[in-house]
Amino acid sequence: MTFSISPDNKKFKIPDEKMTLKEISNIKYLCALNRKKGKKIVVVQGLGFVGAINSAVIADTQVDNEIPYFVIGVDLPTKNSYWKIPIINRGESPVEAEDPEVKLIFHRAVHQKNNLHATWVSQAYTEADIILIDINLDVEKIELGKAVNSRVKINQFKEAITDIGGRMRPDALLIIETTVPPGTIEKIVAPIISEKFRERKIDLEANPPLIAHSYERVMPGKEYIKSIKQIRRTYSALNEKASEEARKFLSNIIDVKNYPLWRLPNTTASEIAKVMENSYRAMNIAFIYEWTLLAEDLNVNLFEVVDSIKVRKGTHDNMMYPGFGVGGYCLPKDPLLAEWASREIFKREKHLNFSVQAVDINDLMPLHTFELLMRGMNNILKGKKVAILGASYRKDVDDTRNSPSIVFYDEVLKNGGKPAIHDPYVKVILQREDIVVDQDLDRTLKLAEAVVLVINHGIYLSSAAQKIASNAKKNACIVDAFNILSDQDIKSLKEKGFLILGVGKGHINNL
Amino acid sequence: MTFSISPDNKKFKIPDEKMTLKEISNIKYLCALNRKKGKKIVVVQGLGFVGAINSAVIADTQVDNEIPYFVIGVDLPTKNSYWKIPIINRGESPVEAEDPEVKLIFHRAVHQKNNLHATWVSQAYTEADIILIDINLDVEKIELGKAVNSRVKINQFKEAITDIGGRMRPDALLIIETTVPPGTIEKIVAPIISEKFRERKIDLEANPPLIAHSYERVMPGKEYIKSIKQIRRTYSALNEKASEEARKFLSNIIDVKNYPLWRLPNTTASEIAKVMENSYRAMNIAFIYEWTLLAEDLNVNLFEVVDSIKVRKGTHDNMMYPGFGVGGYCLPKDPLLAEWASREIFKREKHLNFSVQAVDINDLMPLHTFELLMRGMNNILKGKKVAILGASYRKDVDDTRNSPSIVFYDEVLKNGGKPAIHDPYVKVILQREDIVVDQDLDRTLKLAEAVVLVINHGIYLSSAAQKIASNAKKNACIVDAFNILSDQDIKSLKEKGFLILGVGKGHINNL
Repeated sequence: MTFSISPDNKKFKIPDEKMTLKEISNIKYLCALNRKKGKKIVVVQGLGFVGAINSAVIADTQVDNEIPYFVIGVDLPTKNSYWKIPIINRGESPVEAEDPEVKLIFHRAVHQKNNLHATWVSQAYTEADIILIDINLDVEKIELGKAVNSRVKINQFKEAITDIGGRMRPDALLIIETTVPPGTIEKIVAPIISEKFRERKIDLEANPPLIAHSYERVMPGKEYIKSIKQIRRTYSALNEKASEEARKFLSNIIDVKNYPLWRLPNTTASEIAKVMENSYRAMNIAFIYEWTLLAEDLNVNLFEVVDSIKVRKGTHDNMMYPGFGVGGYCLPKDPLLAEWASREIFKREKHLNFSVQAVDINDLMPLHTFELLMRGMNNILKGKKVAILGASYRKDVDDTRNSPSIVFYDEVLKNGGKPAIHDPYVKVILQREDIVVDQDLDRTLKLAEAVVLVINHGIYLSSAAQKIASNAKKNACIVDAFNILSDQDIKSLKEKGFLILGVGKGHINNL
Repeated sequence: MTFSISPDNKKFKIPDEKMTLKEISNIKYLCALNRKKGKKIVVVQGLGFVGAINSAVIADTQVDNEIPYFVIGVDLPTKNSYWKIPIINRGESPVEAEDPEVKLIFHRAVHQKNNLHATWVSQAYTEADIILIDINLDVEKIELGKAVNSRVKINQFKEAITDIGGRMRPDALLIIETTVPPGTIEKIVAPIISEKFRERKIDLEANPPLIAHSYERVMPGKEYIKSIKQIRRTYSALNEKASEEARKFLSNIIDVKNYPLWRLPNTTASEIAKVMENSYRAMNIAFIYEWTLLAEDLNVNLFEVVDSIKVRKGTHDNMMYPGFGVGGYCLPKDPLLAEWASREIFKREKHLNFSVQAVDINDLMPLHTFELLMRGMNNILKGKKVAILGASYRKDVDDTRNSPSIVFYDEVLKNGGKPAIHDPYVKVILQREDIVVDQDLDRTLKLAEAVVLVINHGIYLSSAAQKIASNAKKNACIVDAFNILSDQDIKSLKEKGFLILGVGKGHINNL
């Protein structure tokens, strides 16, 4: 018997064939019931950070006191994914989030409105009026700092589309929300669906596939729900009918009165928009990196410099600060999707050098903090306890996807150090169960010979300096990689005998 | 006898020794007179796009009905520079500008307030209470696209500082406004001034040189004066006294109530701020370049895509549009000043690769428009008239410094074409008097076999399409490098038989 285990260690039996047969009939019953109530059936494929929340938001939607959509969320009955399904069906959220609305919305959608059901059976697609694709399209990096050699896992995505093409109703609307390489819908999705329709003897003239693209701008954190409902949304479609239906659907979900939809004339344009948007952000971070190194060497506090520049509203106010590195699902990979599309779909010889380079620079950033650590430790790390404060890549969330903390942790290990990692939000790092994340800050810091502050969680801003002073070894080396410590903290720790270094904080030498 | 000739072709005799002696006594008289009126003497070194306007703004300043500063502007008695001096002394502006206030302010300062005088004699420095350095610190590029090999003309700057060090009063305040390589004030200016003070037997303990740094954010154009007085200003100084005096001076000139000053703790920090600020801008433009090429190859209109992204206020609203290239005094060189300082002043081995690369990408941008032209002309340019609409680098101004139009013009020539260049604002391109700029759009377009629109001057937006249709050769190739032509214009020109290509406008193929 196989189990799927949730991040908070709940065990769920992965369904067998008998359960699956029962679930198929359950799905049919639920759809018939809700269709009778006048609802359309929306099936969301993928119950990750986007799809899960999206499912609940759509299920929770009311328009003029009517509930327009019954929602079925689909994910795979695998060890890594299955647990989300029973969790959602209990009315709980499969993602931890600061936004208190997240918990409420799952409870409302499942228990009060009886309007959200999660499942693992593909037969849901045959029932759907609208299918939302929210599965991941991952990029696997072969080597750190060589992003151009990455593998885009397009085959898994193609298989999912193929499966849907074999099941979806000819008149169903398919909305791709997944971030995809530009050109994917026209050159990959549409041909697959058409081919499947032909196999199913569906007349393509009478039933041109209704495929739209609308990328999300979801941001896990304090405004998780707002980042779905109250945010500008871009969309596009392969034909007028799909465009009009996508517009109607999105208008029901999103507060379009205050956040009007933006239509782009074709799916390639909106696919470019998504990856370009994230590439811009990635590049703005990479830009700071080389100025960070300059500032350190010139004894300058780059945070102050950036603050002085950011007063230029409209041109410079989005300048980033020095930091530890870049994590999350999008920024480390989206420029690579564009590069891949350019090369593989469109056979271009020109590269998106600047954007790909940004990924490399950002991926290598945690190694700069490691260099500072080594400098502070006189290059001797063997056997030394190194406390790492922070496992997630983002302030006050539990998200550890592509967290630079992991790169740093491994580097410490590789050099013979003993990393101890703390994060108040993170219970487990998926795919890296070997890393034990401690929730006890005192224990993590106890007798540490080095302390590295890597993310600006509120608790570090308020208490890290004091906790370090009372727990770490005297003379420990402290590396502040995210401007956690104030100049006052630094002076006081220096007086106590600690050695302090900081990313972008060249002025520390003069304090 | 040697003459200096102004851009509008006025001839001025360069002063001889007799005139110079007379001018020295004139300066002494003017300073004594104004000092008696309770004014301080401000000497501005350099009467270019910044110094000239700055001189007039300071001379025009009133604080509580008092005129605090009498201003002397100094430039060199050379062929290229001298003409500015008599022009200013006539109460006229040496720079053409859209801002109507520019003309008025020179008239007011010279004729109504008798408070501005321009001169070529260095003796002015000995009279100064405050010296403003606004001379250029140029970078000479040896080869297009190889910015890393550029020469920073630091020696001219050093000579100017040395001259001042030999003349300035020990208690005078020196404010460097010139954009300089980070570290220049601490490592170059201060040592020179101190050395000169020592030579002059000035006690450095009693008279530590008062040196401050405050970089300008002047932008020629419609809000030229506003870009001096109503803009946030950063400053820093070598010591507290200099800092306090700089603060007082700037507070008199700038609307600090609405645009508070920002003090940085040392001159290296504010020197970094200036070049980093412009490098950020340069990089944001360079970023667009590779997406422009992608969009063209994927038949997408990148302008629409960028518009759809710019709705993300605070993170993406400063995204740039595809364009013809980057000109002006700052963006093409400021990243190189940082790279030079890193290498030459601080002997670092790390490079500012990303920022230097941005310069190269931007410098090479006009060659992409040239590629489009060649594609449209089937690679045959020999003997063909190519009309270039735009000589300046910026909308509705006459500024041609580092204009990409010049690179493009030369490329057309090199390939055997006959360039004809039009600009309603530009009478002459300094240092390139061989290029005749026409102000007659019909004449420029007459029988042209190719037309290239390179800057979004208002007149092109309103009438280029119609003028091209009625003047250019039928079947001419039109390259829109700055989104001048609307889709409607393009359709209509296509119908008339013109061939149209556009930078970042891949959708043209489908129109």
